Amino acid sequence: MSISVAPDGTEYSFPTPEEDKKEFEILKSLSEEERKNGRKIVVVQGMGFVGSVMAAVVADAEDESGEPLYFVYGNDLVSRRSYWKIPVINSGKPPVNADDPEIPEIFPRCVNEKKTLRATWHQKVFTFADIVVVDIQLDAKKPELGHAEEGYCDLNAFKEGMRTIGKSIKPECLILIETTVPPGTSEKIVKPVIEEEFTKRGIDVEKYPPLIAHSYERVIPGSKYVSSIRNFWRTFSGINEKAADLAEEFLTNVLDTEHYPLCRLGHTNASEMAKVLENSYRATNIALMFEWAKLAENIGVNLFDVIKSIKVREGTHDNMLRPSLGVGGYCLTKDPVLANWAAEALFGLENKLPMAVSAVNINDLMPLHTIEIIEDACPSLQDKRIAILGVSYLQNVADTRHSPTKLFWEHLMEKDAIISVHDPLVEVWSELGDMRIEKDLSKTLFDAEIVVFAVGHKLYKALTPEDVVRMCERKPLIVDCSNFLTDEKIKKYLELGCNVIGVGKGHIKQLKKKIKMAL
Amino acid sequence: MSISVAPDGTEYSFPTPEEDKKEFEILKSLSEEERKNGRKIVVVQGMGFVGSVMAAVVADAEDESGEPLYFVYGNDLVSRRSYWKIPVINSGKPPVNADDPEIPEIFPRCVNEKKTLRATWHQKVFTFADIVVVDIQLDAKKPELGHAEEGYCDLNAFKEGMRTIGKSIKPECLILIETTVPPGTSEKIVKPVIEEEFTKRGIDVEKYPPLIAHSYERVIPGSKYVSSIRNFWRTFSGINEKAADLAEEFLTNVLDTEHYPLCRLGHTNASEMAKVLENSYRATNIALMFEWAKLAENIGVNLFDVIKSIKVREGTHDNMLRPSLGVGGYCLTKDPVLANWAAEALFGLENKLPMAVSAVNINDLMPLHTIEIIEDACPSLQDKRIAILGVSYLQNVADTRHSPTKLFWEHLMEKDAIISVHDPLVEVWSELGDMRIEKDLSKTLFDAEIVVFAVGHKLYKALTPEDVVRMCERKPLIVDCSNFLTDEKIKKYLELGCNVIGVGKGHIKQLKKKIKMAL
Repeated sequence: MSISVAPDGTEYSFPTPEEDKKEFEILKSLSEEERKNGRKIVVVQGMGFVGSVMAAVVADAEDESGEPLYFVYGNDLVSRRSYWKIPVINSGKPPVNADDPEIPEIFPRCVNEKKTLRATWHQKVFTFADIVVVDIQLDAKKPELGHAEEGYCDLNAFKEGMRTIGKSIKPECLILIETTVPPGTSEKIVKPVIEEEFTKRGIDVEKYPPLIAHSYERVIPGSKYVSSIRNFWRTFSGINEKAADLAEEFLTNVLDTEHYPLCRLGHTNASEMAKVLENSYRATNIALMFEWAKLAENIGVNLFDVIKSIKVREGTHDNMLRPSLGVGGYCLTKDPVLANWAAEALFGLENKLPMAVSAVNINDLMPLHTIEIIEDACPSLQDKRIAILGVSYLQNVADTRHSPTKLFWEHLMEKDAIISVHDPLVEVWSELGDMRIEKDLSKTLFDAEIVVFAVGHKLYKALTPEDVVRMCERKPLIVDCSNFLTDEKIKKYLELGCNVIGVGKGHIKQLKKKIKMAL
Repeated sequence: MSISVAPDGTEYSFPTPEEDKKEFEILKSLSEEERKNGRKIVVVQGMGFVGSVMAAVVADAEDESGEPLYFVYGNDLVSRRSYWKIPVINSGKPPVNADDPEIPEIFPRCVNEKKTLRATWHQKVFTFADIVVVDIQLDAKKPELGHAEEGYCDLNAFKEGMRTIGKSIKPECLILIETTVPPGTSEKIVKPVIEEEFTKRGIDVEKYPPLIAHSYERVIPGSKYVSSIRNFWRTFSGINEKAADLAEEFLTNVLDTEHYPLCRLGHTNASEMAKVLENSYRATNIALMFEWAKLAENIGVNLFDVIKSIKVREGTHDNMLRPSLGVGGYCLTKDPVLANWAAEALFGLENKLPMAVSAVNINDLMPLHTIEIIEDACPSLQDKRIAILGVSYLQNVADTRHSPTKLFWEHLMEKDAIISVHDPLVEVWSELGDMRIEKDLSKTLFDAEIVVFAVGHKLYKALTPEDVVRMCERKPLIVDCSNFLTDEKIKKYLELGCNVIGVGKGHIKQLKKKIKMAL
């Protein structure tokens, strides 16, 4: 059936050919009118987590007298997965769910009050664009877990997106790529496709070299989501000087570049590389900490105290990271793979990125370590009732993309454990076939024999050992994957008769001895 | 011959048995006198780079009324390598060469004015100690370059040092270990040796458990050397509560703990681990950047511009490091090896530290990459005249320990290049058989065909391309290993007819094209 279903269950039928025709007429007259008002037309391609909010931020941008600078079309495909976003945005509602109070404000403001934002499925919308901002999703594929070196990036859908743009845009339209792409993509993928389409259309690419620029977002999930787009540093580059100049002008208009000055790099390869490098840096530092966590567990050390003592060295050591259940989210799990793949596929290099790739492998497999330490304390997990607290990949967000809890859950299932999963923020676990997530903590804990604090949500941090023990029918094994049990809480659990273990927390053995001696 | 030769060439004969006897009498009466003055006696064992300055800092410590708190003995062995330090210190001169103007002040102040510091070779000096500070050198051995996983630590000399202490100290003397040791050393090596010696001496170790503490320095070579001991964060721990309390009192008296509060960890394993972890973190981050440098070179990117653009992200990304000719110095090259070795040798673990060890291997071999990029530009190095600018391992210091220039030099020698080496700070290269280092830059450059900027000393940074070209008989290939040639300088070199290459500087190809087009 030609419908698209929104997360709230509302069904939206795909547009009919008549509606399609009518939409183009609307776009045409609207664009002419907006241009008369002195506004440039921006089309944001891809209404995902980043694109939709970026579209709103651009639509919200004003000049010094408070006049909107741009009229923005948010564009996405007529597909089961995406089409619903178009009518939702046009009703003034955000197509994303986030903690940030700015999100439910900025969409109605731009759609209904300022009237500077309209979503459209129509692929001819690019005809009217002065600037196209590309926010298409681009994944890395990892055929086998623990073998990220074989990971690759399928650029076909992305290329088709570029082709759609090339078929319609004016020759002097700026294409600003925000998608995280393998280094080399602007130059070696986007440029040839646009040139090909320009040439087909009879546009002289010598006279009108495509104006392609690259600038990556650094959005931070959570309560400052919109601000992390608008009020944050941006790096950018252009495939030629004119493209870079146009990107600079656009970003200066849209973002707070007064407090967060732009950084212009000399080549699109450079800014594309910057994005995947900054995430590879983080991924590598988490992986490094993981091997020290295992050492700490074995030699009676609390790694988190050690890290805290080192991080006082501001400017040289305060960026140290920490181990946990594992690494999730959309960036750290894939960006090193994009770079490693690009080195060979786009540049023919044999020297690739062994450390960054090995970091991905270590991080991807990290959840299995928590199972190992559980099995040290409780050798058979068959028919053991395990409560997992936290499904999202990060504390206090509802985002489950590439959450490490998934691998953890799967491996516990293989061991025939009986698992219940709780998360205060996640309704359904889409990566596990829209599995319903329990919202009632006491139901989850009631018959648990093992309680795994997987993610450090506020709700879990607020729980006292007494709370947990009261909700549990028996004294469970407590597993701290995220270093949010303080030593006081651990001691209390031990005094209440629970056993406690934790990732990177080798000092618990000593706490146990002290408790035993005190009894 | 029983002499020890100071760096300035002065020869010192070893003490005679009579002098030895006399020395003990002096120590005895001096200690009694100082104790009467209300001062505690501190013996610092090991008058190396750290120990000698630590001894001076302790001797310089005063109470609120300006009275010295401690009387300090600086102790070292009667050996060819070390003995000269004793008479040198006792003449009021520093036994170390450093840029720091505090160094030539603090030694005469403590020895001659305050009279709170005396160096002694006598191994019975520990008899008088209230506190022993251990600053013995402890190396990691790496049998083969690129195989740090086989690296180990020979603890025998260190153990003998501990035995010397155990033979003489009062049972309630604090032993504060500052040496960077493999995690587990205080508990598994020092404690048993001291207990053994106590037991031999009839001391009941149940009643007098040895008071062993650990606290590591974080000295920074260069112009703020003394300050980096006194005005910097310290982490410490004790083998028992009493030892930790005594260490806390001592460190509070000696260091600026008001501005740099102490951090107490719960176990000596923890603080020992902290030291090697903080250096492993740095070593790993340099190694990571090295693989991205090679990518950057191949895809036309200036990695240093990319890093600069990322480092604006304060608190999360501003600790990124950078590649160079290689990694030297005493800490980053050995500390991961100490930790990896300890995991197996002291704790019997199979899970070791693959990332940290692989970082050491990558860093140790990094100098060979500069040879690779030179050979790309100049295929045969046989009989090529190569000027290496910089021998020390770090800019603006004279320290050549584990300098990456050594491997670089050795491999160029194997290729039958004709090498001249310059360094404004280094007199002789002790790691290469006290090779004399040229101090006259024009002599070094005169007939050079390849000029390698190995280390970013101020002198080299101040050189203009015109200076360099004027000193050279022909137009040399310029090799920038340390990112201190700005793009302006690179362009100027190119305009002057020199070729330029650099580690992590793939953008030079584009600069060359621009210059060519301009000509």
